[in-house]
Amino acid sequence: MTNTQVTLVQIDNYGPWTVTPEPRREADLQTLQSRLYADISQFVGNRDGYVFFTRFDNMIAVTNGLSMSDHRLLQETMGNRYPVTLSLGVATGTSPVQALSDATSLVQDAGSAQDKSRRECLEGRVIDDAHRTDDDVQIAHFDVVDATGQYTDELNAFDSFIHIEQGYAELMRHMRSDHESLSFFVGGDNIIVVCPDLERSEYETAIQHVEAAVDVELQVGVGRGISAHDAGFAAKHALETCRADGTRVELEW
Amino acid sequence: MTNTQVTLVQIDNYGPWTVTPEPRREADLQTLQSRLYADISQFVGNRDGYVFFTRFDNMIAVTNGLSMSDHRLLQETMGNRYPVTLSLGVATGTSPVQALSDATSLVQDAGSAQDKSRRECLEGRVIDDAHRTDDDVQIAHFDVVDATGQYTDELNAFDSFIHIEQGYAELMRHMRSDHESLSFFVGGDNIIVVCPDLERSEYETAIQHVEAAVDVELQVGVGRGISAHDAGFAAKHALETCRADGTRVELEW
Amino acid sequence: MTNTQVTLVQIDNYGPWTVTPEPRREADLQTLQSRLYADISQFVGNRDGYVFFTRFDNMIAVTNGLSMSDHRLLQETMGNRYPVTLSLGVATGTSPVQALSDATSLVQDAGSAQDKSRRECLEGRVIDDAHRTDDDVQIAHFDVVDATGQYTDELNAFDSFIHIEQGYAELMRHMRSDHESLSFFVGGDNIIVVCPDLERSEYETAIQHVEAAVDVELQVGVGRGISAHDAGFAAKHALETCRADGTRVELEW
Amino acid sequence: MTNTQVTLVQIDNYGPWTVTPEPRREADLQTLQSRLYADISQFVGNRDGYVFFTRFDNMIAVTNGLSMSDHRLLQETMGNRYPVTLSLGVATGTSPVQALSDATSLVQDAGSAQDKSRRECLEGRVIDDAHRTDDDVQIAHFDVVDATGQYTDELNAFDSFIHIEQGYAELMRHMRSDHESLSFFVGGDNIIVVCPDLERSEYETAIQHVEAAVDVELQVGVGRGISAHDAGFAAKHALETCRADGTRVELEW
Repeated sequence: MTNTQVTLVQIDNYGPWTVTPEPRREADLQTLQSRLYADISQFVGNRDGYVFFTRFDNMIAVTNGLSMSDHRLLQETMGNRYPVTLSLGVATGTSPVQALSDATSLVQDAGSAQDKSRRECLEGRVIDDAHRTDDDVQIAHFDVVDATGQYTDELNAFDSFIHIEQGYAELMRHMRSDHESLSFFVGGDNIIVVCPDLERSEYETAIQHVEAAVDVELQVGVGRGISAHDAGFAAKHALETCRADGTRVELEW
Repeated sequence: MTNTQVTLVQIDNYGPWTVTPEPRREADLQTLQSRLYADISQFVGNRDGYVFFTRFDNMIAVTNGLSMSDHRLLQETMGNRYPVTLSLGVATGTSPVQALSDATSLVQDAGSAQDKSRRECLEGRVIDDAHRTDDDVQIAHFDVVDATGQYTDELNAFDSFIHIEQGYAELMRHMRSDHESLSFFVGGDNIIVVCPDLERSEYETAIQHVEAAVDVELQVGVGRGISAHDAGFAAKHALETCRADGTRVELEW
Repeated sequence: MTNTQVTLVQIDNYGPWTVTPEPRREADLQTLQSRLYADISQFVGNRDGYVFFTRFDNMIAVTNGLSMSDHRLLQETMGNRYPVTLSLGVATGTSPVQALSDATSLVQDAGSAQDKSRRECLEGRVIDDAHRTDDDVQIAHFDVVDATGQYTDELNAFDSFIHIEQGYAELMRHMRSDHESLSFFVGGDNIIVVCPDLERSEYETAIQHVEAAVDVELQVGVGRGISAHDAGFAAKHALETCRADGTRVELEW
Repeated sequence: MTNTQVTLVQIDNYGPWTVTPEPRREADLQTLQSRLYADISQFVGNRDGYVFFTRFDNMIAVTNGLSMSDHRLLQETMGNRYPVTLSLGVATGTSPVQALSDATSLVQDAGSAQDKSRRECLEGRVIDDAHRTDDDVQIAHFDVVDATGQYTDELNAFDSFIHIEQGYAELMRHMRSDHESLSFFVGGDNIIVVCPDLERSEYETAIQHVEAAVDVELQVGVGRGISAHDAGFAAKHALETCRADGTRVELEW
């Protein structure tokens, strides 16, 4: 049974900071947000977690394997090197959405995202090492069937992008409402979804749903593991099987 | 009248690179994509352009003010420091979508995104300095009315995100189909749209459309300028007026 | 008794890469070298180690606390994101210079720094967790007495720099030949030295030696710990005592 | 005749910042310093200048080709993305050391490096476009003859480093005192020197001096250009001639 450890990463007082004393150059905000995310991706990723850029001022991470002191160190190193600071909420549970919801409440209870005095809160709990298992995380890695042939080499780059966005928006809503799952666009034509225990048929239904709703053809590789990296890497390999064999759903177990 | 110079930035052979000889750690791909984008944002932004991460392997930029040799230098500096290379297509026109479409064709004609032998193509043309005017670029900067109060401090972080994504997906489609415009989510609750000459009423209609379709309330500041930075900065200031006065559409001229 | 774990980090085939097929823009090489070092500093530093930029193509790290699989992961993540790869040699011992020498031999035995076929070697051994103690690392943090008043606010910036370099060159030679220690300039007027067990009198002698030889006045804080971070952080605090009390040598135990 | 435009880049109030409210993790300071330098290297380098890391809190740049508004933009973009700010002094002259000295005075007159109230000063003047010539900058690129064979593959990595540092320290002093030149170690076994108009014989003398003083054998390629990049790139090509032909001094004109 899945036991997902989810961390909400929220930049403290970011909205006001971006316009104080004056609005800042947009290109600089984009650079700052991207590099801040990239550093968190290295810190979390090198401990076998995954972090998704999400809204950039709010980022969602699967942190099975990271301890509370790892979370504190992340805050410290980012606070030492950036002009902003981070608040973190950590929660766990069978349902990824529920864990994320609990993590969010921990941060919200500490204060508003635009509360000048809320800085570097760290609340929550992690899974004890003794209780971690190889089933804790389930990751599904979707991509669009032959995106290069269907879109990238054929349509203008924005229309390709619109198709992929529509596919993402539809999948994201379906996976959240029907399966308590968290879906994230990660570049190209790839969407990574953090799931509870789902069956082959549920992935098949999701794919059919998206095709019917927005005419975007997805395929998916699914993996399980003790961490996001282990589950996600297995999912990537399963997806290679889809690509090689022309199948639409492959489970790595 | 607008005369938008659009550049399509496409990483050469990226899909295959990410899985050769084996799939690469996802967190490393995220870091690479984000830092590559951040560097392009600095290069383009410091010459008063804007670049949007879009799909990360395909990025769209508004490059009024950058010459062809600036584009060549961008390829050179990125090629010297990253394990991948970039192909660029540059086009101009009254319609941002048309310019982007022409830029895409230039790259597509040079070869597939996954063509091993297509590397560092640079095709297209820029606007002569002599022909640049203060009306060349129109930027609309949308955000969600009181996102912090309505979403961030109230809902779980993923449901906040879903609302913002739905708003983005609806606005993106409407602005593309009705107004030849290119819309980009840039973090938080902000969407930047690259427009041709649009009137106040057209922005009001767009906002009403999104509210009716997905119940997301947007406000917008609009600016014009000789470059994306000039237009976008004026748009940011106009948006501050919306925030201060409670209005929904503000034009900076 | 100190037991320093030293890692030599060497970029594979870097010299030839910088000029193939043509010499590359110097500013790009500087950016690449600096960011590569910065990433290694985060990876090693977040595991409580220290890495020094040294020659940039060859970097020296104190890696007490990092396992061999940590070293392998460092190679993997860097190889995924940079156009070059790293070879690593790891050794341990009472004498920092001896450990570094053994680490160097491990890499040299695997092949020349400019051997096209030597890629991502990883050789050596780490200290077992069971054998680690709070005395394993001794760090001395030197700086110039009142550098701001004596140099930065008085001399031109290059003459300030020359004074600091002369102080560094003298200290580096003395600490290596008389005390088997490794000295690194780390910016400003700061030099960090990795030492075996040294006594107060030996630090006093070093300071007198440098003052007599090149007329540069140094002060030093010294710390011990189970890791470079623990020892170095204690050394920083001791140095603050020098600054506050006007003393020249402070030991944090 | 050379006309070098030199910029001193000084981080405002850095010393106090690194220890307020407490000393910061050393690895984080190293990361911050290196990435701040890397960004300045991109900004300056993409405008055909060179910047050298020097002391990291004080950096020296050759900025022929950058205007005062380029300098202001550099301050703005760095101030938007880092927790520290920069003060800049710009001066020009036949003698690189004199120009650097004038640039330093401009910053010193604005206030101490540790003056809390001195922030983002920008003083000085640049060379008018109309007055720039192909002789403005002279760059000499030195390296150690067969460093890989003599040092890297033979000695331990610290002893290799000591040899290169001794060579650098000697060259740096000689070139400054005898030739008004600024010398910078740039990694590996490479030293870049910013010179006024020097003759072949003066480079030969410098090489002999270093060999006699510290037994380190150098070779050098020299170039001239309208910018640091032009001069330095020509120097790199000249150095390739030394490597290919076994000569010790090559001038690219």
